[in-house]
Amino acid sequence: MNKYAIQHIPDSEYAYPLNENTLRLVLKVARGEKFKEVSVLWNNKYDFAKRRNFTRMRKLCSDELYDYYVCDLSSADVRFAYVFLLTLPNDEEYYFSEEGVTSEYDFKHGYYTFFQFPFINEADVITPVPWAKDAVVYQIFIDRFCRGDMEKDDTYITQTWEQVPGAKDFAGGDLKGILSKLDTIQDMGFNTLYLTPIFRSPSNHKYNVTDYTKIDPMFGKNDDMYALLEAAHARGMHVILDTVFNHCDESNPLFMDVKERGRASEFYDWFIVHGDFPEKYDAKTCNYEIFADCPYMPKWNTSNPKVREYLIHIALTYLSWGVDGLRLDVADEVSHVLWRELKAAAKEKYPHALLIGEVWHENGMYLGGDEFDGVMNYKLQKVFADYFAGDLLSAAEAAERINRVIMCHRRQTNVMMLNFLDNHDTPRFLRQCNENEENLRAALVALYFSAGIPCVLYGTELSLTGDGDPDCRRTYDWSHKPRHALFLRELAKTRKSLPYGEFYATTEHGILVLVRENETERVKAYFGRTETKGDVIFEYENIRLVKESV
Amino acid sequence: MNKYAIQHIPDSEYAYPLNENTLRLVLKVARGEKFKEVSVLWNNKYDFAKRRNFTRMRKLCSDELYDYYVCDLSSADVRFAYVFLLTLPNDEEYYFSEEGVTSEYDFKHGYYTFFQFPFINEADVITPVPWAKDAVVYQIFIDRFCRGDMEKDDTYITQTWEQVPGAKDFAGGDLKGILSKLDTIQDMGFNTLYLTPIFRSPSNHKYNVTDYTKIDPMFGKNDDMYALLEAAHARGMHVILDTVFNHCDESNPLFMDVKERGRASEFYDWFIVHGDFPEKYDAKTCNYEIFADCPYMPKWNTSNPKVREYLIHIALTYLSWGVDGLRLDVADEVSHVLWRELKAAAKEKYPHALLIGEVWHENGMYLGGDEFDGVMNYKLQKVFADYFAGDLLSAAEAAERINRVIMCHRRQTNVMMLNFLDNHDTPRFLRQCNENEENLRAALVALYFSAGIPCVLYGTELSLTGDGDPDCRRTYDWSHKPRHALFLRELAKTRKSLPYGEFYATTEHGILVLVRENETERVKAYFGRTETKGDVIFEYENIRLVKESV
Repeated sequence: MNKYAIQHIPDSEYAYPLNENTLRLVLKVARGEKFKEVSVLWNNKYDFAKRRNFTRMRKLCSDELYDYYVCDLSSADVRFAYVFLLTLPNDEEYYFSEEGVTSEYDFKHGYYTFFQFPFINEADVITPVPWAKDAVVYQIFIDRFCRGDMEKDDTYITQTWEQVPGAKDFAGGDLKGILSKLDTIQDMGFNTLYLTPIFRSPSNHKYNVTDYTKIDPMFGKNDDMYALLEAAHARGMHVILDTVFNHCDESNPLFMDVKERGRASEFYDWFIVHGDFPEKYDAKTCNYEIFADCPYMPKWNTSNPKVREYLIHIALTYLSWGVDGLRLDVADEVSHVLWRELKAAAKEKYPHALLIGEVWHENGMYLGGDEFDGVMNYKLQKVFADYFAGDLLSAAEAAERINRVIMCHRRQTNVMMLNFLDNHDTPRFLRQCNENEENLRAALVALYFSAGIPCVLYGTELSLTGDGDPDCRRTYDWSHKPRHALFLRELAKTRKSLPYGEFYATTEHGILVLVRENETERVKAYFGRTETKGDVIFEYENIRLVKESV
Repeated sequence: MNKYAIQHIPDSEYAYPLNENTLRLVLKVARGEKFKEVSVLWNNKYDFAKRRNFTRMRKLCSDELYDYYVCDLSSADVRFAYVFLLTLPNDEEYYFSEEGVTSEYDFKHGYYTFFQFPFINEADVITPVPWAKDAVVYQIFIDRFCRGDMEKDDTYITQTWEQVPGAKDFAGGDLKGILSKLDTIQDMGFNTLYLTPIFRSPSNHKYNVTDYTKIDPMFGKNDDMYALLEAAHARGMHVILDTVFNHCDESNPLFMDVKERGRASEFYDWFIVHGDFPEKYDAKTCNYEIFADCPYMPKWNTSNPKVREYLIHIALTYLSWGVDGLRLDVADEVSHVLWRELKAAAKEKYPHALLIGEVWHENGMYLGGDEFDGVMNYKLQKVFADYFAGDLLSAAEAAERINRVIMCHRRQTNVMMLNFLDNHDTPRFLRQCNENEENLRAALVALYFSAGIPCVLYGTELSLTGDGDPDCRRTYDWSHKPRHALFLRELAKTRKSLPYGEFYATTEHGILVLVRENETERVKAYFGRTETKGDVIFEYENIRLVKESV
């Protein structure tokens, strides 16, 4: 038996409450390791020495290295002590406790070495934001989506709508444009908008904010935002705003004050300046902390409590307008303390506010329940890109990698991950597919089928293509009928009927199969032609979704 | 190469800032796996694709299954991206990234798969509480230590001082008694008191609190506590109070109100009652959540924000008196949210307050920086008991287990762990040693030598012995000279001269060796007779502490 592979961490994504009376346990063992039975011996921690319940675990899925066994323990007494019991085919038994894998276990002195979940406190149970569970998101890069305001001062516009934009071009899209297209968006099955930044900023993307309280005049007035929120809510739609708290623009008055007064400025400690005054040496270097290599984007010092108070006030202001969720830009370069304080403050007043962090890398540290509800799921996106676009993975490898991504998180957290194929920072998925529309559609099925919130970049329905930033931010061609609109609408409708519970990947006859199931039914998505049993609820080319009873 | 053994988690105890410019990395590999070199390729994340620095890692120590390699990366740019490079003896090279172990690594697309520590934000750096680094703690169970107030109403006393107490006996110890013995305590090298609970409660241990604001009259008045704090501080000593926020006593007025009014009580939701009124069925069962099987100890509902506010107010009150630290009882059954809020509130006003949780089991979830500074180190105590008292481990096994315990935490956190051989909840260590004083002394050397705060139970110096609760809580015999007093004093003095930096265990010639070192010097503690080089700075029987240059 491979002892190195046997892994479990109490009070983590391996052991967490599904609700106030049920503890989900996950055990990792070496892929393919043969067991007659994997089970758990458990009781309330004060009676564990005397007697134990026995619960069999089920092998839910596998990744490249590990098999994942799971079980749920339900009990009125929610003070859990547990030890795993591994039974080999020859009936040899091993125990796995905090002490490691042992052939004997001293239950009498278990209080030193059992695993425990000492009490399910309601406040520690992660509960999905109710609307997030059903959200289907349409991401809009505002300058390129639709111009609605024909009266505004448009001298800032640098290109015709038809041109392909460069990095610094302005095309004229605005909030009124979005408002005018709500019907169109909703008709495609979307019920949530995710808007890239809207606040005053000199750039077209507005990720460098000059004033966090005013909508940029290029995009409209604050009243336009209120109107958009009202119209969206009137349709039962939700709105997520991109919120940039890692850095601002050098034209932000607070940074300007520091540039002028240096250490004498009351905002000196709001930034991280290595010297008396902030100094820019050239286009890429300076003596203060910045985002990437952009001296025009000075970094907020989120270790300073005053900065946190200021930024949290801004977030609460947006939520007070009725904004339903925030997507926090460059979340990983910001102090964890800000995110903890922001979540506590936001959820106290707006328990249904959805908080999504931008984290491209390992993200478990943000998803323990105290920082974000979910993060942008770059890990899943990479699998989709490598499998559906890049043809870099076999079906088995794709299944393994999907399972690895999924099993890194609590089930409730997976529901709130923001899944996507592409966004304003990546090449268009269609381009990654070498313009193969069939592959794009296959990936869209996977996106909509997966646990987590599907998020589609504006123009996907129109086969908008392009390389990375800025080419993925082309203008929307309103003169063409969006050829994938009905397909997306059908996917959104199908998604509603999927069981809500487990999600994992496997293969059958060498074909990738995604599975969703609850206690009574299971739907499998087959990504390839094979024999299937059960009711077909969706079909596209070689892809088939089949519902069966459990 | 054992891929299962190769483990690293970014932004965890495997990757954390030692200070604002230095990132400590830890890599686990299979014990004894042969490498020509283990190293890390790193740079700031925005330049990682272009070029990398190369830093060799050092094998610091080993446990039963793993070797631990460490290195420190120092950089003015604190946005770290890194990938490990494993070179086998035959020069084969493997990379280890978020993608796992691979024979090739695509640096150009590393932004998807490198490990990262995206920015060292000052607020996320764990800094040891300054006084904790030098603290040597004396734990007092107040009813049994010393009676100072001869005037008080002592009709509650149930035994003579000389008798061995039963579970429900009262012997008469109080705060005035402690005050009168401060000289004695300080003379033994202690500079910190840890007092078991002092607030109004019907029991001798007072872990079931009736009134959190009043010192129990058996122990004195609030003024006696203020006087004790003043006297301790005047001597440069610190005081830690045992604080019980998991549960209270059934006589607590808030619970009484619920008993009387049931759901109509404004405090109904302050407890967790499964019914309209709290009902006790018998001595061990009831319809409300409790501590252990004690219906007289109703559990606070720390999921209720009002309860958290109330308890945090109490904690802040103690700190406002000048209390230097809190030991939080049954910390693991309480909501994480309380601990996060408590730490934030306490550290804002009292940055040097030390917060120690009582957690017997895996404790990493409490030690990420947001909940406790340290916990009671039951994991280390178990090794000390099994090796020095129980003779259950070889020297090699003891070293392995010490390293496993140490490597579970950030280096700064290890400094704030509360280490002990025994306490009011365990058998006396001397009893565990079958009254062998030499073994007790050997364990005390290990306790004082280890990273973490040594905490000695009152009476250890007097060879007080006894089985578990209540026998470990015997009265102090003031008629005898404490035979280990000078030994403890010498240990405390020696401890001051130990290097502050790494701590780990190893063996030489089959003998357990504990090691402390910094950049310039190393001290080894040999637990057995063997040849040593360097200056002997402490010697006791077969134990020798030797200082050498690095």
